[in-house]
Amino acid sequence: MIKFTVITLFREAVEPYLKTSMMWKATEKGLAQFDFVDLREFGLGPHKSVDDTPYGGGDGMLLRCEPVFAAIESVKAKSPDAKVILPTPVGKVWKQDSARELANSDAHYIILCPHYEGYDERIMSLVDLPISLGKYVLTGGELPALIIIDSVVRLIPGVLGGEKSAEIESFSDGDNLEYPQYTKPYDFRGMKVPDVLLSGNHGEIAKWRKENSGKAE
Amino acid sequence: MIKFTVITLFREAVEPYLKTSMMWKATEKGLAQFDFVDLREFGLGPHKSVDDTPYGGGDGMLLRCEPVFAAIESVKAKSPDAKVILPTPVGKVWKQDSARELANSDAHYIILCPHYEGYDERIMSLVDLPISLGKYVLTGGELPALIIIDSVVRLIPGVLGGEKSAEIESFSDGDNLEYPQYTKPYDFRGMKVPDVLLSGNHGEIAKWRKENSGKAE
Repeated sequence: MIKFTVITLFREAVEPYLKTSMMWKATEKGLAQFDFVDLREFGLGPHKSVDDTPYGGGDGMLLRCEPVFAAIESVKAKSPDAKVILPTPVGKVWKQDSARELANSDAHYIILCPHYEGYDERIMSLVDLPISLGKYVLTGGELPALIIIDSVVRLIPGVLGGEKSAEIESFSDGDNLEYPQYTKPYDFRGMKVPDVLLSGNHGEIAKWRKENSGKAE
Repeated sequence: MIKFTVITLFREAVEPYLKTSMMWKATEKGLAQFDFVDLREFGLGPHKSVDDTPYGGGDGMLLRCEPVFAAIESVKAKSPDAKVILPTPVGKVWKQDSARELANSDAHYIILCPHYEGYDERIMSLVDLPISLGKYVLTGGELPALIIIDSVVRLIPGVLGGEKSAEIESFSDGDNLEYPQYTKPYDFRGMKVPDVLLSGNHGEIAKWRKENSGKAE
């Protein structure tokens, strides 16, 4: 069974998402497992400090090595083969193929959520999979962690209702996007469903859908 | 003040993130405002249904027009200039520039979180900003909504501790990535901080950082 351990300073920000909807159903069905490590527990000194100022000057605070190494080692002590994922702008861009690869892996992943202005570069020596979610900056790694988990877990057979759902949708076939879809009512405020979709002619419907499939930017 | 209204079936998945960390601080400082509309309240019939099967056949369920139009119109009744954002694979790719544009806008954004297998295409007629977070599929639009909000709100002056933090980091300058950073201790398990960063020579430090800046994939 695939397992994700999220190392974070903000468990309260991450956990509720995993306790709702499909993610929760996946754990209830025994198809995935999530747990959390509070990085603060591995902080230094009476204030459980996890960050410090950068050498060479600069703004903001960086995650220190000691608490991060200790947190990751506490997980690896019980699960030595666990792979470490770090959301970082220098990582490999996350795509549907990457999600499929992890979904098929049945492995244990530790996701380290960086916070503050950045992290000490030596932390990279622990990282198996540096992953970039896109060309934007966030306050922390918690949302990237959730995106990785959500996109992977939904591909595990049995998690989604219809087994086929995960196969026909956007990006499943490389860069191809899904075709426009319509449901009831046929006429909504004068906007009607294209008649071909009501024709019952499967060949024509397939042709229309192919012609109307989008491409991602 | 910038405002985000999130239309969702899973408020309990979204709200905790916005009540923690920087996002919450931004609202406490009066620099941003978040609220929620429960799409289920606009559902049809005794079961408050919001979805139905696709015309022309296919797997899964699609969000219907009626509840979505009603939910958006309930917000626009009080805020007619609010702009509608839809996370969708056919949208414009979200980048740091887009975040900066919204952060400077001081406007009201309604983010519609699609769910299930997709949405009725006629819903696009209400959408001002279709946004793609990347080439991967998620169970719903809640995580994209949070990413948009987080990446925008942290850029609003006063939200982050150091005013400069948001300026020097990854992607702030187009595609350039931040340089590797180091903090205490100098020697961690034999891994040492590059000596130039301790030299006090600002010219050399700047040169080293430039030479060691990464580029995104």
